[in-house]
Amino acid sequence: MDSKSTSDSSEVVGVIGAGSFGTAVANLIAKNTNALVYARNPKTVASINDDRVCAGQSISASVRATNSEQELAESCRLIFPIVPSDKFRSMIRDFSPYLNPNHVLIHGTKGLDVQLNDNEDLFDLQEISRTQISTMSEVIQQETSVVRLGNLAGPNLSGELAQDQPAGSLIASPFDEVSRLGKMALNSGRFKIFESKDMLGAEYAGVLKNIFAIASGMVDGLGFGNNARAFLITKSLHEMLFIGQKSGANSKAFLGIAGIGDLIATCSSNLSRNYNVGRRLAEGESLSQIVATSREVAEGIRTVKIFDMLTKAEGIQAPITNTLAEILFADLSPETALIKLMSFNFSQDVTFI
Amino acid sequence: MDSKSTSDSSEVVGVIGAGSFGTAVANLIAKNTNALVYARNPKTVASINDDRVCAGQSISASVRATNSEQELAESCRLIFPIVPSDKFRSMIRDFSPYLNPNHVLIHGTKGLDVQLNDNEDLFDLQEISRTQISTMSEVIQQETSVVRLGNLAGPNLSGELAQDQPAGSLIASPFDEVSRLGKMALNSGRFKIFESKDMLGAEYAGVLKNIFAIASGMVDGLGFGNNARAFLITKSLHEMLFIGQKSGANSKAFLGIAGIGDLIATCSSNLSRNYNVGRRLAEGESLSQIVATSREVAEGIRTVKIFDMLTKAEGIQAPITNTLAEILFADLSPETALIKLMSFNFSQDVTFI
Repeated sequence: MDSKSTSDSSEVVGVIGAGSFGTAVANLIAKNTNALVYARNPKTVASINDDRVCAGQSISASVRATNSEQELAESCRLIFPIVPSDKFRSMIRDFSPYLNPNHVLIHGTKGLDVQLNDNEDLFDLQEISRTQISTMSEVIQQETSVVRLGNLAGPNLSGELAQDQPAGSLIASPFDEVSRLGKMALNSGRFKIFESKDMLGAEYAGVLKNIFAIASGMVDGLGFGNNARAFLITKSLHEMLFIGQKSGANSKAFLGIAGIGDLIATCSSNLSRNYNVGRRLAEGESLSQIVATSREVAEGIRTVKIFDMLTKAEGIQAPITNTLAEILFADLSPETALIKLMSFNFSQDVTFI
Repeated sequence: MDSKSTSDSSEVVGVIGAGSFGTAVANLIAKNTNALVYARNPKTVASINDDRVCAGQSISASVRATNSEQELAESCRLIFPIVPSDKFRSMIRDFSPYLNPNHVLIHGTKGLDVQLNDNEDLFDLQEISRTQISTMSEVIQQETSVVRLGNLAGPNLSGELAQDQPAGSLIASPFDEVSRLGKMALNSGRFKIFESKDMLGAEYAGVLKNIFAIASGMVDGLGFGNNARAFLITKSLHEMLFIGQKSGANSKAFLGIAGIGDLIATCSSNLSRNYNVGRRLAEGESLSQIVATSREVAEGIRTVKIFDMLTKAEGIQAPITNTLAEILFADLSPETALIKLMSFNFSQDVTFI
């Protein structure tokens, strides 16, 4: 009994965002049912509908695109919003008039929404309040009447998904119905969906791993090998868990495919922007040089800044994050940082369970 | 206050075994105090004492070698036995007359001792009993009067240790005194020792990870990338945890530097014999071809056979181990195995906590 036979084949599943991951998700849905992709740009819509290509990927026959928020919301009960975190709130506000409590939203965005006052720059701040940051599910709750929410997260590099390589991912939701619907839409013989109730943990894991991807790139840039990287990833997992627990998440998602799984993939991939920031820093470039030559600022740099402030204010033990902040924002050299981290007094191996 | 100043500098710490890891450990000890290495072969002893080289590594000035069991046991209270698992019991029997309850033994061997009847071959067996297999700490308990035992385990590729690359490792022991003594002997600015009471978990993690290193090599040999490898490592961790819990270990070591840490390093290193067995199988060679052209059988092949029998007999869910056994011993193709594994019904993400 495959998932296709148990779902209504006339059902259309929505995707908001036609970036590389959104496009890959639409093609995955198309293995099971029809997909409708929302793209703001009419050229992107035409490229999908007419040229059958988007974000470097061929488009399955069962995928169609629109730039009408209303059409997407009225055609689809199940919708996967997948847009960059800094555009997420404005996107969801545009959709809000068309969304109702019958909709099911499973977002696939790894990042935080940060609310600053006018003329404030995140990187000039000395402190930030929890109330200023929101996960994407919190943004949806703040901006819409939708109740049934979920998060799609895992080690899912789009390029590999587009090649139909095997992968696993998590749908985390407090509602079994949401995980079930999401699984019916996405699960296939090459894409294995796992279920969890730990939505906040999955969201925090997806955000925090970008911090440690910078650190991993740095370890490689310093010329170190498998011992050092495995050491770093292990302690990164523990630090993610501490921060997540103090942020109200439980531990489960951190130990699963969206936690340790995504952390391993991101820390091992030289395709990751965050990883490359770390590598270039270790090779001697300054942050300003790196930012000046990058098309967009790696999400992890903002994430380091946010959690450096939060962990210090809240007394959370986060030596890797705090040391990275010194490297990024106070010119500590990666070599000196390494000596500092190796002498940090974390003597017990595992303390979080 | 470094560890050197808190230990008696006249104290000599012993190492049994002059392979690549034993030699690396002796050099690490030599950063803090004097090391005495036991090697059975007089040529190895001469190479260490006279040529100052062993296992491709230069020997620190504070390292000396002997081939007298009695001299080592009488000179050293703290001893690190580091010999291959299939030679461990006979080695410890040779030392037994010279060991007493005042000795502290911290072994660094990742493998199991298997007791078979005369003329029995492990690979011909259909079943095996728990009473036939022992961890190295259990072998020491069976063969000597030593009480204070520990296990040194972590992502510690010898070649990288010899280059003084940073690394972390675990000393697991039920006795705080053992962990403290081991840490004083080994901890340095480049080699960070963590402590845990979960000795059995650390031993099982070191044994079981070899199974999943074969699987990881296979994923790479099939041409798959970061998504598939991160997926496999995550589910491998979960399977290790299940098997370990059913074997009487708790979960802690599996989630620390000797568990997930060592698993990541071993599954990512093409220096690992087990990894290369998997890669070659995926590239089309048969197990008999691989064994015929290898100097020694990769530990992981025996480990798959042992835990395939144990998990089936005890009803433990171990789809990766059981599928690997079909590939190794029943000619299932890696491609078919992948389809089988992807359709396995493990729906929940994390169930072990």
